[in-house]
Amino acid sequence: MSYNTFGRLFRFTTWGESHGPALGATVDGVPPMLDLTEADIQVFLDKRKPGQNKYTTQRREPDAVKILSGVFEGKTTGTPVQLMIENTDQRSKDYGDIAKTFRPGHADYTYMAKYGIRDYRGGGRSSARETAARVAAGAVARKVLGDGVTIRAAMVQMGRSKIDYDRFDWDEVNNNPFFCPDAEMAAQWANELEAIRKAGSSIGAVIEVVAEGVPAGWGAPIYSKLDADLATALMSINAAKAVEIGAGFEAACLTGEENADEMVPGKDGKPEFLSNKAGGILGGISTGQPIVARFAVKPTSSILTPRKSVNLDGEATDVMTKGRHDPCVGIRAVPIAEAMMAVVLADHMMLHRAQCG
Amino acid sequence: MSYNTFGRLFRFTTWGESHGPALGATVDGVPPMLDLTEADIQVFLDKRKPGQNKYTTQRREPDAVKILSGVFEGKTTGTPVQLMIENTDQRSKDYGDIAKTFRPGHADYTYMAKYGIRDYRGGGRSSARETAARVAAGAVARKVLGDGVTIRAAMVQMGRSKIDYDRFDWDEVNNNPFFCPDAEMAAQWANELEAIRKAGSSIGAVIEVVAEGVPAGWGAPIYSKLDADLATALMSINAAKAVEIGAGFEAACLTGEENADEMVPGKDGKPEFLSNKAGGILGGISTGQPIVARFAVKPTSSILTPRKSVNLDGEATDVMTKGRHDPCVGIRAVPIAEAMMAVVLADHMMLHRAQCG
Amino acid sequence: MSYNTFGRLFRFTTWGESHGPALGATVDGVPPMLDLTEADIQVFLDKRKPGQNKYTTQRREPDAVKILSGVFEGKTTGTPVQLMIENTDQRSKDYGDIAKTFRPGHADYTYMAKYGIRDYRGGGRSSARETAARVAAGAVARKVLGDGVTIRAAMVQMGRSKIDYDRFDWDEVNNNPFFCPDAEMAAQWANELEAIRKAGSSIGAVIEVVAEGVPAGWGAPIYSKLDADLATALMSINAAKAVEIGAGFEAACLTGEENADEMVPGKDGKPEFLSNKAGGILGGISTGQPIVARFAVKPTSSILTPRKSVNLDGEATDVMTKGRHDPCVGIRAVPIAEAMMAVVLADHMMLHRAQCG
Amino acid sequence: MSYNTFGRLFRFTTWGESHGPALGATVDGVPPMLDLTEADIQVFLDKRKPGQNKYTTQRREPDAVKILSGVFEGKTTGTPVQLMIENTDQRSKDYGDIAKTFRPGHADYTYMAKYGIRDYRGGGRSSARETAARVAAGAVARKVLGDGVTIRAAMVQMGRSKIDYDRFDWDEVNNNPFFCPDAEMAAQWANELEAIRKAGSSIGAVIEVVAEGVPAGWGAPIYSKLDADLATALMSINAAKAVEIGAGFEAACLTGEENADEMVPGKDGKPEFLSNKAGGILGGISTGQPIVARFAVKPTSSILTPRKSVNLDGEATDVMTKGRHDPCVGIRAVPIAEAMMAVVLADHMMLHRAQCG
Repeated sequence: MSYNTFGRLFRFTTWGESHGPALGATVDGVPPMLDLTEADIQVFLDKRKPGQNKYTTQRREPDAVKILSGVFEGKTTGTPVQLMIENTDQRSKDYGDIAKTFRPGHADYTYMAKYGIRDYRGGGRSSARETAARVAAGAVARKVLGDGVTIRAAMVQMGRSKIDYDRFDWDEVNNNPFFCPDAEMAAQWANELEAIRKAGSSIGAVIEVVAEGVPAGWGAPIYSKLDADLATALMSINAAKAVEIGAGFEAACLTGEENADEMVPGKDGKPEFLSNKAGGILGGISTGQPIVARFAVKPTSSILTPRKSVNLDGEATDVMTKGRHDPCVGIRAVPIAEAMMAVVLADHMMLHRAQCG
Repeated sequence: MSYNTFGRLFRFTTWGESHGPALGATVDGVPPMLDLTEADIQVFLDKRKPGQNKYTTQRREPDAVKILSGVFEGKTTGTPVQLMIENTDQRSKDYGDIAKTFRPGHADYTYMAKYGIRDYRGGGRSSARETAARVAAGAVARKVLGDGVTIRAAMVQMGRSKIDYDRFDWDEVNNNPFFCPDAEMAAQWANELEAIRKAGSSIGAVIEVVAEGVPAGWGAPIYSKLDADLATALMSINAAKAVEIGAGFEAACLTGEENADEMVPGKDGKPEFLSNKAGGILGGISTGQPIVARFAVKPTSSILTPRKSVNLDGEATDVMTKGRHDPCVGIRAVPIAEAMMAVVLADHMMLHRAQCG
Repeated sequence: MSYNTFGRLFRFTTWGESHGPALGATVDGVPPMLDLTEADIQVFLDKRKPGQNKYTTQRREPDAVKILSGVFEGKTTGTPVQLMIENTDQRSKDYGDIAKTFRPGHADYTYMAKYGIRDYRGGGRSSARETAARVAAGAVARKVLGDGVTIRAAMVQMGRSKIDYDRFDWDEVNNNPFFCPDAEMAAQWANELEAIRKAGSSIGAVIEVVAEGVPAGWGAPIYSKLDADLATALMSINAAKAVEIGAGFEAACLTGEENADEMVPGKDGKPEFLSNKAGGILGGISTGQPIVARFAVKPTSSILTPRKSVNLDGEATDVMTKGRHDPCVGIRAVPIAEAMMAVVLADHMMLHRAQCG
Repeated sequence: MSYNTFGRLFRFTTWGESHGPALGATVDGVPPMLDLTEADIQVFLDKRKPGQNKYTTQRREPDAVKILSGVFEGKTTGTPVQLMIENTDQRSKDYGDIAKTFRPGHADYTYMAKYGIRDYRGGGRSSARETAARVAAGAVARKVLGDGVTIRAAMVQMGRSKIDYDRFDWDEVNNNPFFCPDAEMAAQWANELEAIRKAGSSIGAVIEVVAEGVPAGWGAPIYSKLDADLATALMSINAAKAVEIGAGFEAACLTGEENADEMVPGKDGKPEFLSNKAGGILGGISTGQPIVARFAVKPTSSILTPRKSVNLDGEATDVMTKGRHDPCVGIRAVPIAEAMMAVVLADHMMLHRAQCG
């Protein structure tokens, strides 16, 4: 977690800007002898790909990944895996008018304040296109984890409309354009988001990501806690403003009796938990229960309604963003969340093996 | 953020168990020529110290810090600062009965699952006593930041009782045992917590931590975002289950119009923001506005009501924790939150200076 | 210095195999607003490029670098700089016969022992082609250092033939194909190496690299010593077997009187040293004198004389390497040494600025 | 390898000054369930301890180590092991006259140039007393490695007097005060060093350190090479000026035929090497042969002969160091070298297990 690198042992560095020639991820520390093809990665990139329906940006990118290194005859070699995605639909002209203006809610001003320079084309490095590289790295992480660990995410809230957890059905997630696990709510969101889209507005969302099959013992105390690593992983996603594990903020409202997940003797001599308020993590270490995290993403700041701002010369101006944008960026955050869960777990699987054999 | 080390340039490693001879922090990377005495650190340790009122554990520890290295004639030398706090009130006998039982909500089971061994005396390494070392390191971080940056925290919710932000008064925080900025709510909490304490129960809380005076430009994109670092810093605190920045989870409910903090020309040619939904961070980089974070801590799992559990032999048992415990650990999390904010900011101040001069 | 990443603040990760589609370096932490073009990098790659004379491998690679990210309108933006070099002259057929044999002196056996798989084409990741990525990263490091720091390297010994330091002339280095600073010795080496090349043999060498203009105060005590970092940097170069700083191994033969570099009052109140046995580094920190390091590279292990070895099936075999190889790899190590000196210094410049302002 | 921390997975941070109250090592990442007592560590500290004979400094320190954390009931728990050694024989008065003078060959000037402050008492942080902490950490590393790996070091050259490798006998090392493996040379050194000591002078040395029992496959390519890590480890030892692996600088003089270690089929299907010019490492990865490194240490700079220098005010002065010093610091570097070999190998054992299972 330094600069543009995530992870300790399973580590990847992403690079590239929205409107540069390409972007990618340099994935290092990958165990050898894993089967890995471009198709294994492409399937996850396709879930995140823009332009798939009217609710996501109409930028059309094939997002075709190329493996440039680290794989030989279909297997990882233990050396760095370079994953490159070429940018093909850049339309720099769309963004020319924002070169000298700081868009509210965007990173325009802060990049300028930090670096004294910014690649304003499509947001440059701060664009959510960077997340394509995360998704690619996440696909490699899944290979490291193997089939025993299942990672799935879903959008569980859009604006104030939350799903009904009694209707939660993972199979439903791929039946609608929202990755919504509640068919009824998906229908409602379709109406709500269409109205928002037509108004040139945008809306926030909450995504839940769950990992099943993680054995007890992954993670580490104090400053490498599994939940703390998930927190940084999810908060690093563009537009994320909040993260919670298990009961999350609701834990503040609980008594000790309500919060403590009781245990009874289970199979194989391992304890069986009667609830999962902990979200699968105690003391920073996995309990063997499903690991459950949620995070909130703010509405995209690119909207048609003019907002007050200032320009490079410090003068007042109004900003209205035309361009091509997602009315709810939460939708495309779903495959990104899965990727970030995967990379955190792969890193901790390797850390655990290193220390505890 | 590896194992027991936090930070990249301003880095500290904590060590020590609840009932060992001592605990401490090895603080490395400290800039030279800073005035630093034990008294500078002690003032923050005293805020966190147990046994100060009936709402915190009755364990009585002076928590007196010793500087063993890195300071010469009252000034830092640029070499590692070793801060040691001796444990004096250990009473191991209190904990003898939990050697063979996994307390629900505690890290007993997960430490055992990971390491095959655990120091069960007072929770060993998973005890909140480790946070004394964080507070000590945080005091050094404040020296690095200097007087221009003000860091303050307060408890803003206990159970379902939230403060009224219209009554928020930093001066009130030190007038009550809850670090509560709302005098009226403090009185209400006094009644509520007394009932919880007498019932041998416990309750969760939400803490808010604010840094003022941070210039625009600290933080870094992608995997060293200031908000992502705060997320891991706060989530690493014992019992934390959720973290949010600025509008946080509420951002999911906002439209783009509501969420975007508008800017107008301000003093010194810098923009002035008309709101702070962003919590002072955009694209992972500070905006110059106050940095605002909140986190939830669960109720302490040590309660008098028996809970179902299993023992080392995998047999069913009931656990009831006598010992000395806090009915609301959120109270003592307040100075810890300030420390973690300080160490994150000190690290980013140095990172920014390194890259951008 | 983890896996394929070098550096702490100025950090680069190299990727790519000898016979893959491309190789490169992901350079992170680069300060913003530095002028950087592909031409700035190409000039150093051209010094290292193979096929320039009869003493280096006849593989013909243009080694044309492309900047894929991190530069906008000719200036660095503070985001990762991706430098890619496509492989064009791969001739995999040359290497087909070594797929099943471990070449003595090469990394064939150890890669196989470690990973259970190896990309045998041209040595895969262990090929010296990786050093092109180092040279590219080194060119960026020079931009970070600016014009005040001059870094130059030369070959000072080939086999048992050492240069005469009384004839050392930096201007001579580019007048011969050996980067030799002693014209007389260059002529002698020409004869010697021609004989070695015709015999299908090879020979080792010693390279000296010097940095001038480094101010006193760069480096850091204990485990980030400037000399220790140079040691790892130079030892990481393919075929390197030894590193020394200043007097180096000769220091073992000196008395304290001979070794101590005396100081007298110099200009600007700074001490002037009367000798430089220390090689510009004391206690891991630069003295302000030139930093002087030397390292030895072994002869290339690819020779025409058959050597005993074993194959993948554990059977005895003889190995004779045809292919295209350098009779003295030390020659091409010269620009690589400069690059490694540059990246170490850029990292320490930034570390020093971070800690000491 | 950042600041005062060494290692990636097996990581330790040393702290403390020569004349502070204590010094120590915070060892993190230690695998759990290893037997570890203070006696296990003390045996190595005793080898390094000063004042044991007339050839080492007459400072008398018991160097008694205390384990303050990370061990429970005689076993490591996986949490940080704090090792503390109190300073007892500090005699600050001996050093009062050097507060304002930069001793040639010492780090006095460079610490001041870097930090603007220095703890001049006994060299402060730059004192070789820091190496006691390394030796303590090294004892823990040996526990990680287990009995299968044997690490031994010896002094093989003092001044220009080199041992005869034909008389090399590990059993001889503990029969003389020089850790000399050649009994005949030990006798010669006794005379030579006595003369040097009486003259108030000092002399350099070369130490060889060998690890046997390391399996093929430890280490990693490119920037985590086992030899590059050994180079930084040994070069970080006080007074070290040169490091070599296997044939080392002599490799520069060899032809490819001479240098390539031939292989024949060996036991268990593994190759048997006919020589070990490589020093047990190829491509940065262990071959299964003994790992052989050598390093040179300069003569101690504290001598009775006056040397020219400058003082804090920039004025010319003469420096003569009385105090208590070793005429050949190489002697006490022997146990330190073993410790550094041990920590590098423990780190790589864990890294290999992490990536390759």
